[in-house]
Amino acid sequence: MIVYFRSMRIKDEAKQSAIIDATVKLVNEIGFVSSSVSKIAKEANVSPATLYIYYKNKEDLLVSTYLEIKQRLSEEILSEFNQNAPIRDSLYKFWTNAFHFISQNNSYFQYTEQFANSPYSEKVNHEDVEKSFTPIYEVLQKGIEQKIIKNVSFEILSVFMFYPIMNLSNARLCKNITADSKTIEDAFQLAWDAIKL
Amino acid sequence: MIVYFRSMRIKDEAKQSAIIDATVKLVNEIGFVSSSVSKIAKEANVSPATLYIYYKNKEDLLVSTYLEIKQRLSEEILSEFNQNAPIRDSLYKFWTNAFHFISQNNSYFQYTEQFANSPYSEKVNHEDVEKSFTPIYEVLQKGIEQKIIKNVSFEILSVFMFYPIMNLSNARLCKNITADSKTIEDAFQLAWDAIKL
Repeated sequence: MIVYFRSMRIKDEAKQSAIIDATVKLVNEIGFVSSSVSKIAKEANVSPATLYIYYKNKEDLLVSTYLEIKQRLSEEILSEFNQNAPIRDSLYKFWTNAFHFISQNNSYFQYTEQFANSPYSEKVNHEDVEKSFTPIYEVLQKGIEQKIIKNVSFEILSVFMFYPIMNLSNARLCKNITADSKTIEDAFQLAWDAIKL
Repeated sequence: MIVYFRSMRIKDEAKQSAIIDATVKLVNEIGFVSSSVSKIAKEANVSPATLYIYYKNKEDLLVSTYLEIKQRLSEEILSEFNQNAPIRDSLYKFWTNAFHFISQNNSYFQYTEQFANSPYSEKVNHEDVEKSFTPIYEVLQKGIEQKIIKNVSFEILSVFMFYPIMNLSNARLCKNITADSKTIEDAFQLAWDAIKL
């Protein structure tokens, strides 16, 4: 009985994952307006009825896909985080984790960029989303208190520390950049020089 | 006769400008796929026949709108450029020019972001577009030769010197940021610290 239960759960997760992937693929190809629940279900190889077990409607599906991507991103960035490491080392770990995840999942970020430009973005509690990135803000705050990092707003720090990763690991924006270790090292040095006191 | 001619040209420019504005507005609202030539003509208050005087088809219109925005951006960034000024001063001038233009024209950059994510982006000769930004690259190159700026690729330098402006002046991304002079100064200091040797 337990075995049967487990295997059912695994099947469900696989289906849900297929629906998320199909949503990302279709929205990136034809946009939010044209992406209907029935087209997404077809792309995911499930019936619309199955899709409605997991998601109330198109809005729920699009918002959930966004939240799922943000969740995966924060888990990846924070993996192997050691809060006793020196501040520069912690930021370097976040940096390389994010770089690898984003360069391997460009389609996710094409989706989140488009999502942020869409009216659905207003349905998200962005403060809640930011909570999963709290350890990053705590490292920055500690750096400010220890006079290692410039005392400017988190927004400005993030723009120099994390947004460059999005741009550099995006093959579309930076055609001549490869995510080799030299590029990652060089760019991290610039990010660090930007924010350090 | 000349007066008539001039006034005709002015009228045409006003129409063309209305078409560009309508394209930006409609694409931002409903996306590339759903934006048809007839809807854009209606939004611009011109007949589809008039629109076809200026643009061959939807693709031509979307690509031309992108090129027009890039053209306006480069003209704004390079206004009052003095190639004999110190390198830091030249970059500061580019920075503040770009900051003001982008924060006053957020809808343009919502359009260019979406455009870059669309298949129409492949129809643009991006090297040609970059040519209008040549003076910026020349300043960076001079800085590298004079050992004022780090000897890394233009892509990496741009990611720290110019992309932050896009993020900071974008009200959607940075809700708590206002484009006041303190923010512009603080952020420029971080950009400069990132790229300087």
